Amino acid sequence: MKNPTSEIITIGDEILIGQTIDTNSAWIGERMSMIGIPVKRIISISDSSDEIRLALADSISRADVVLITGGLGPTNDDRTKSTLAEFFNSELIEDKTVLEDILQLLKVRNVPVSSLNRAQALVPHNCRVIRNPQGTAPCMWFEKDGKVVISMPGVPYEMISIMETSVLSLLKTHFKTPAILHKTIMTTGVPESKLATMLVDWEMALPGNFSIAYLPSPGMVRLRISGIGDSRTGLETEMSYLTESLVAIVKDYHFGYDEISLEEKIGQILSESHRSIATAESCTGGNIARLLTRIPGSSSYYKGSIVAYANEIKVKYLDVPELMLNQYGAVSQQVVEQMAKSCLLHFDTDFSVATSGIAGPEGGTIAKPVGTTWIAVASREGVFSQCFQFGEHRERNVVKASLAALNMLRIEVLKETISK
Amino acid sequence: MKNPTSEIITIGDEILIGQTIDTNSAWIGERMSMIGIPVKRIISISDSSDEIRLALADSISRADVVLITGGLGPTNDDRTKSTLAEFFNSELIEDKTVLEDILQLLKVRNVPVSSLNRAQALVPHNCRVIRNPQGTAPCMWFEKDGKVVISMPGVPYEMISIMETSVLSLLKTHFKTPAILHKTIMTTGVPESKLATMLVDWEMALPGNFSIAYLPSPGMVRLRISGIGDSRTGLETEMSYLTESLVAIVKDYHFGYDEISLEEKIGQILSESHRSIATAESCTGGNIARLLTRIPGSSSYYKGSIVAYANEIKVKYLDVPELMLNQYGAVSQQVVEQMAKSCLLHFDTDFSVATSGIAGPEGGTIAKPVGTTWIAVASREGVFSQCFQFGEHRERNVVKASLAALNMLRIEVLKETISK
Repeated sequence: MKNPTSEIITIGDEILIGQTIDTNSAWIGERMSMIGIPVKRIISISDSSDEIRLALADSISRADVVLITGGLGPTNDDRTKSTLAEFFNSELIEDKTVLEDILQLLKVRNVPVSSLNRAQALVPHNCRVIRNPQGTAPCMWFEKDGKVVISMPGVPYEMISIMETSVLSLLKTHFKTPAILHKTIMTTGVPESKLATMLVDWEMALPGNFSIAYLPSPGMVRLRISGIGDSRTGLETEMSYLTESLVAIVKDYHFGYDEISLEEKIGQILSESHRSIATAESCTGGNIARLLTRIPGSSSYYKGSIVAYANEIKVKYLDVPELMLNQYGAVSQQVVEQMAKSCLLHFDTDFSVATSGIAGPEGGTIAKPVGTTWIAVASREGVFSQCFQFGEHRERNVVKASLAALNMLRIEVLKETISK
Repeated sequence: MKNPTSEIITIGDEILIGQTIDTNSAWIGERMSMIGIPVKRIISISDSSDEIRLALADSISRADVVLITGGLGPTNDDRTKSTLAEFFNSELIEDKTVLEDILQLLKVRNVPVSSLNRAQALVPHNCRVIRNPQGTAPCMWFEKDGKVVISMPGVPYEMISIMETSVLSLLKTHFKTPAILHKTIMTTGVPESKLATMLVDWEMALPGNFSIAYLPSPGMVRLRISGIGDSRTGLETEMSYLTESLVAIVKDYHFGYDEISLEEKIGQILSESHRSIATAESCTGGNIARLLTRIPGSSSYYKGSIVAYANEIKVKYLDVPELMLNQYGAVSQQVVEQMAKSCLLHFDTDFSVATSGIAGPEGGTIAKPVGTTWIAVASREGVFSQCFQFGEHRERNVVKASLAALNMLRIEVLKETISK
């Protein structure tokens, strides 16, 4: 038997007109690929019988499992259930268990029971009803010609709860699936095209059952290795070898695995080594502080920041001499190193990082165009700095400068932690 | 001629396996519905020639416009362009302008040119090439039997920039669509359900060709009025009356129109009145500074921030007495007002705003549960503060506290500007 595949159909105008971002499909896609029934297509349609019937007929002709979300609310604009009943030549009957669940849930929530709620207990007679622990719309499991169609409510936490408590395990037992493994290698400070060039030989030598995807975002590229095979153990051995050999090539550009962020990674190292940090930001305007404090528990290692947007604040709080500002300009090695050193001293931390750049759109010159950014890292060992050219886009300059600063910090923190 | 419709095809495994949430389609869906070419279906497929060909043939048979995003990166896993060339019986030729754009962009970014980058200048000979101001992959516009197919890169800011500078206006002139008008009224500080109750009568009196949508996001609800009709002038008259009558009902909760942000609004008032501002942040960890400095030109009114994450920084830089911290705790009216007053004084600005709260997940008590947040605004007229309870979710607490702080600031700045 060939490997089973799945498709997702999401029902509802709110996605088509951009009122709601479809987060359900990403969640389902990840879980289905993990149990070896990968999602091959996601289709979003409006809440009309014709659309539902056409999309379902299409999907069922291609995939072994069709997961439908949405279109099951108590109001009249939801046509999914009657369309499914018709599609599977079925009658709608009242399900006692579902009705009890609905009455119980509304009682707990202190909501009066309407006829619309009662109608939610009507289900096609030939489907398997899966209870919804979090809401009034039940989940329905249909089988036809060896294919499975599952209809779930669109409210994310209801769908997730149904998938986690029932659907995923039912699917695993229903289908014989191969083992599938993914590993994501996080890189920063290197463009996708350069990574691809570095990895040409590595990619050529990839076993046939493995593949790699490049997933870029500003300042960062995620490399995802995927493998498929009969034995999970075999895959794991191969994956760990492939991961190691890839990391040996990309070296310092690699900072972690599986969606970890730079600020999380830095937080881990600082926490474990009981070190502390502060920031002095000009062009990044508080963004590095925001990223570092996003991490729960960051107050144990992060002391704070001077956002010195105006030059007078650099003078007053970070001891930058006015003469230095006049002589070299705010965006200079001298100024950014002074900012980092003063920050370290005044906040009394083990590390500090400082930024000074021209975010744009105004303020660029021929010698220092928009995007020019100086970043310095200071520690008890001294201070070092680097100049970057990020580009012309203000918001992206801030994002890239923040990531570059965090990356310089990560490398320094790591070096000093290992050497101790 | 019937009203034109569109479909979106997104290409890339990262969406199917759930590594990326598809935000592009929501953005496109909203904009296409605004120009009267609503999206009827969104299809996500993998980066394979067969899938692309099948999905495209399907979509083009149903819709007048097919918008394709993704599958145009410089690496080998992108098969979109060759498939499109085949689909439209076309040869790939090098486009001089695109090549120049690519070389120029890489030069500015200081990235060496690889053969993969050069290959991005190859385009099907019979498509209209639309330049990508933000990246190396060009946009391609195909026409066949009266239908339009547009292929764009999947990187959100590149796609948005291409749509805004070219595609939307080209589509508007290409198709005859009815006049459609939208007006968005921005509100903050009031939940969706309360707004709906306030607007019951207003909604009942809406003309049949007008509708309203509630678009909530953490700390904010956008109200979008939409009207459709034959004459744009007629719509405009009616829209301006409807907008005024709505704003008269929601009063102070309303802070602006058409996607303006609180920080933009504040920036406008401060710029015009030549006032200045600084911030002192604890729980928001630099996020207010980041929001204020996102606005181009903010350096003319924003001086900087003390991010006083550790209590010792509140003492050292914001003159909060240790006794006060011990007696009332860092999250208290006394401390947050002292922070705001010292910030105003030291940064020598006209306004300041300070935050101190328990973002979570740790740190809550029975008296001050997670989400408790004090916010103070200081000006030459004095200081005032307010306590909020935001909830249990760390990231949302930071977002909500930042918006609440900006809103208190907006109201105060507006009041003092008008009274002068």
